[in-house]
Amino acid sequence: MTDFQPADPQWEARVRASFDRLGIMKTLGARLGKIAPGSVEILLEYNEGLSQQHGYFHAGVTSTIADSAGGLSAYSLFPVGRAALSVEFKINMLNPADGDCLRAVGKVLKLGRTLSICEIEVYSQRQERESLCAKMQQTLFQVAART
Amino acid sequence: MTDFQPADPQWEARVRASFDRLGIMKTLGARLGKIAPGSVEILLEYNEGLSQQHGYFHAGVTSTIADSAGGLSAYSLFPVGRAALSVEFKINMLNPADGDCLRAVGKVLKLGRTLSICEIEVYSQRQERESLCAKMQQTLFQVAART
Amino acid sequence: MTDFQPADPQWEARVRASFDRLGIMKTLGARLGKIAPGSVEILLEYNEGLSQQHGYFHAGVTSTIADSAGGLSAYSLFPVGRAALSVEFKINMLNPADGDCLRAVGKVLKLGRTLSICEIEVYSQRQERESLCAKMQQTLFQVAART
Amino acid sequence: MTDFQPADPQWEARVRASFDRLGIMKTLGARLGKIAPGSVEILLEYNEGLSQQHGYFHAGVTSTIADSAGGLSAYSLFPVGRAALSVEFKINMLNPADGDCLRAVGKVLKLGRTLSICEIEVYSQRQERESLCAKMQQTLFQVAART
Repeated sequence: MTDFQPADPQWEARVRASFDRLGIMKTLGARLGKIAPGSVEILLEYNEGLSQQHGYFHAGVTSTIADSAGGLSAYSLFPVGRAALSVEFKINMLNPADGDCLRAVGKVLKLGRTLSICEIEVYSQRQERESLCAKMQQTLFQVAART
Repeated sequence: MTDFQPADPQWEARVRASFDRLGIMKTLGARLGKIAPGSVEILLEYNEGLSQQHGYFHAGVTSTIADSAGGLSAYSLFPVGRAALSVEFKINMLNPADGDCLRAVGKVLKLGRTLSICEIEVYSQRQERESLCAKMQQTLFQVAART
Repeated sequence: MTDFQPADPQWEARVRASFDRLGIMKTLGARLGKIAPGSVEILLEYNEGLSQQHGYFHAGVTSTIADSAGGLSAYSLFPVGRAALSVEFKINMLNPADGDCLRAVGKVLKLGRTLSICEIEVYSQRQERESLCAKMQQTLFQVAART
Repeated sequence: MTDFQPADPQWEARVRASFDRLGIMKTLGARLGKIAPGSVEILLEYNEGLSQQHGYFHAGVTSTIADSAGGLSAYSLFPVGRAALSVEFKINMLNPADGDCLRAVGKVLKLGRTLSICEIEVYSQRQERESLCAKMQQTLFQVAART
């Protein structure tokens, strides 16, 4: 799925544990999807508590799962004892996020010692159909993890 | 506070009603702060359900209240029967969002018939101190409101 | 190369004529590369007059050819009598732009009646090797063309 | 003009020397305006070689002077022997850049040991009038300068 070699053989357990520490993911009801070295997916089913004024997913909600999909994509490649902090991101809303479920897929574009760059695509799923509803570019900073 | 004249004398009631339709604001626990024509403030007290892996406010949460502070700032200037959709935004995290409360303040930079541009500053408050923790630039699209 | 059908059978001549009206492209020495409906390439050979303080291509120069590669990619799909204006863009510099030549490749992510979204990759070429040095996300506004 | 204290008493001479090493500034015809610790201005008079298809300043040209105004604003505060590289930036075009002269004003929002964040406003001047035509948010990386 990606060309990256994880620095830590335990990368998958580490990604899952990091996701579990994200309080906001429980609040939103998000869950991990497919994960691979350098590419992490987050899924989020719709409920009214995630909506903007027209009943769609709020752009901030879309951004929240995209931001973590990107952060965990980079984190999956980091050595043990490191963490990923979001420096900045930019997101375009391409189509209404009006589906039953969102699927955010992160991908590392550049893995650096200090900065890593990801892009994240978010798809809106309704029944059998899926459309690209948002795209993010994101910069991450690698820091020592807090224990 | 701003130089803008609202097109609708009932702008304040309209902004409050629009905020109340944002399901995600209830989920996060956010509330409206000061509002003026072209500038809307959103406040959010910390709880563990809003956190990233180190216990700070998640960048997506910061983005969510910033996005709505900007959207409502533009919306406050729109004529009756119109709504603001986020086209895109970009946010820089300047300092850790490690306070007890976040305060997002929107400001309209350009009000256009189709597109409006806002900037939003987010402050992290701890006891008496406040620091700028994030800044967003945002593009909004003016559409007919759904009733 | 792309799934898009151009609205105008004369799209290629129109893209070439539009490129020729861009005064800055002559100033920089940029030229059109491959063009397809929804995807336009711009090439730029290095000279010292394009440099930042370390002698690499200046990030603004990289942005300039990326912005026009994106704008022309969308324009190639527009009906006759329309033009593309840049609303905003965001660019990440992934690797030093230290090659002999830059190659910017635009791609339309979303073609809309009013707004279109493109992404643009910029590659730095040195002898036989090429590396991704920058990536842009861009929003364009479709307006009536000036004659 | 700003609250920042420059780390190097020779900051002004260093900023002027750094500007003079930017080959693209000569090519465009840009010149330094007012400079203060943490805030550098760049001016650019119009000529046809700077234009987009309608004869206005090209958005890439606007970005080029904004990027350097931001980079030099941060650089003015750096210790001796350091340089500022652009990690990423995002720019919104607020109004047509149709003036006789552009004026880009950089401002440091956050000065960090590794990353600094600037915002840059670009004004379009025509005779006595000036309007805000673009706004940029920018992330810079502090590296050892090359000699």
